[in-house]
Amino acid sequence: MDFSENDSVDAVLASFADTPDPRLREVMDGLVRHLHGFLRDVRPSLHEWEQAIDFLTAIGQRSDEHRQEFILFSDVMGASMLVETMEATRQAGGASGATGERVDATASTVLGPFHVVTSPERALGDTIDSVGTGEPCLIEGSVRAPDGTTVPGARIDVWQADEQGSYDVESEGRQPIGNGRGLFTADDDGRFWFRSIVPAHYPIPTDGPVGALLRATKRHPYRPAHVHFIVEAPGYVPVTTHVFVEGSPYLDSDAVFAVKQSLVRDFAAVDDADAAARHGLPNPFRRAHFDIVLAPEAS
Amino acid sequence: MDFSENDSVDAVLASFADTPDPRLREVMDGLVRHLHGFLRDVRPSLHEWEQAIDFLTAIGQRSDEHRQEFILFSDVMGASMLVETMEATRQAGGASGATGERVDATASTVLGPFHVVTSPERALGDTIDSVGTGEPCLIEGSVRAPDGTTVPGARIDVWQADEQGSYDVESEGRQPIGNGRGLFTADDDGRFWFRSIVPAHYPIPTDGPVGALLRATKRHPYRPAHVHFIVEAPGYVPVTTHVFVEGSPYLDSDAVFAVKQSLVRDFAAVDDADAAARHGLPNPFRRAHFDIVLAPEAS
Repeated sequence: MDFSENDSVDAVLASFADTPDPRLREVMDGLVRHLHGFLRDVRPSLHEWEQAIDFLTAIGQRSDEHRQEFILFSDVMGASMLVETMEATRQAGGASGATGERVDATASTVLGPFHVVTSPERALGDTIDSVGTGEPCLIEGSVRAPDGTTVPGARIDVWQADEQGSYDVESEGRQPIGNGRGLFTADDDGRFWFRSIVPAHYPIPTDGPVGALLRATKRHPYRPAHVHFIVEAPGYVPVTTHVFVEGSPYLDSDAVFAVKQSLVRDFAAVDDADAAARHGLPNPFRRAHFDIVLAPEAS
Repeated sequence: MDFSENDSVDAVLASFADTPDPRLREVMDGLVRHLHGFLRDVRPSLHEWEQAIDFLTAIGQRSDEHRQEFILFSDVMGASMLVETMEATRQAGGASGATGERVDATASTVLGPFHVVTSPERALGDTIDSVGTGEPCLIEGSVRAPDGTTVPGARIDVWQADEQGSYDVESEGRQPIGNGRGLFTADDDGRFWFRSIVPAHYPIPTDGPVGALLRATKRHPYRPAHVHFIVEAPGYVPVTTHVFVEGSPYLDSDAVFAVKQSLVRDFAAVDDADAAARHGLPNPFRRAHFDIVLAPEAS
């Protein structure tokens, strides 16, 4: 029987019927149903479908070791944040135990496309900024369990844009690779602190297909200022998150939908010559406090 | 308010609200709804979503001037055939006129990923095969309107795999580029004829991400033997189609869902020394008759 609009889902699902892995079969089943549903709703012409194929191809081809345009596409479509939100819900459920109480772990948010360089290992108190043109700041906090227990020795991977809103990999040599990145180990009391500069809000890369999409749809490309964190410790669920700079533009319209109110912190101006000298910072400086709460792994 | 699973569609649709082009806005609206619907149904873990991003990126990166892996992905998902089927329905509707009668034009089918070389212009009766290792055949027919009127001067673009099931661009030098391809102009009576070899069934390219998907899902990669046609004439709706070789394996399980029963033809063995001599073919030879009916454009 010829392929027809009414039977297209059944015909394609039948072709996947022998998929050995049940999860892969479930994924392909959902993909076929939603892909065909999308096509039946939108009814692209052949020419439009060719344009769509060209767009997706260009996204793959724009990606390389320092650029991941498909993550960017997932980000601006809200897909990354939706997957992130569902993962956090699942992990909170897994960690809540038999009584089902909610675990108040630090909220997660998107990984983003810039975790493409291994962060250099640095000592507590070191600076992650080697350029020196931004406004100096101290970022400090502690890693704890929901019950307040300290989590010693957590690994804290941070990366951020500079005061011009650029990551090392997109600064065209202005920053050395590894600038704005650091991998720290919390001390025996779970505390961490490091120096940096206050990051700026920035546009996601707009010189590729995703930028063209944003222009065509009159969407702005900006993300509010933030520092990325991945925090891991044995026996705890790792968290991928940001700390956002209070007062930054675009906190209410992040191009990738990643802002959570619980992650916004004041990067307060501090005038304290002793503290500045102790941390090797000029006075005055800016200081943000960002405590991390990790959910215990389900036993 | 934080992004949540329940509100994700609304949040992302709001970001596209200022899209100036109404069609683009409609497409993005459908994409957001179905993409988020797919994610909510399938609930990929972050790791699975990273695998999906890597898979799509690899599809783009596997594409080049002679290979279009995203068309291949669209083909094996039945998306190309669904778009093709909807386009044909729309054009038949557009061409049927006020009385709404069905126009019996030649059925269309997928373009496929191998229309990547401009077909060499050839004279009626020429051969499109310059290698000479396959079984010689004559393909002939005429181009007509649904009412039987001849359509003189139609342009007939054909391309096909060889007797080993390879297109010129994937034969690694065994065939010169342009082999198995020809662009013909029908004569004043709408007739066309050319020499070739009987194509073989073949696997779609399996050395890329789409091949990996087929292996993981235990799908075979084969397409039944066929010759591609695009036929165009002023005042008529162009048709992109195939003629399939009757008796070929995989006519009932084409990897890209493109078989229509009305497009299958007998490539009959002919023992006719005069006809063979007239066409410059050895005797015996194979012969297929494939008439093309083009729908008039809507006025």
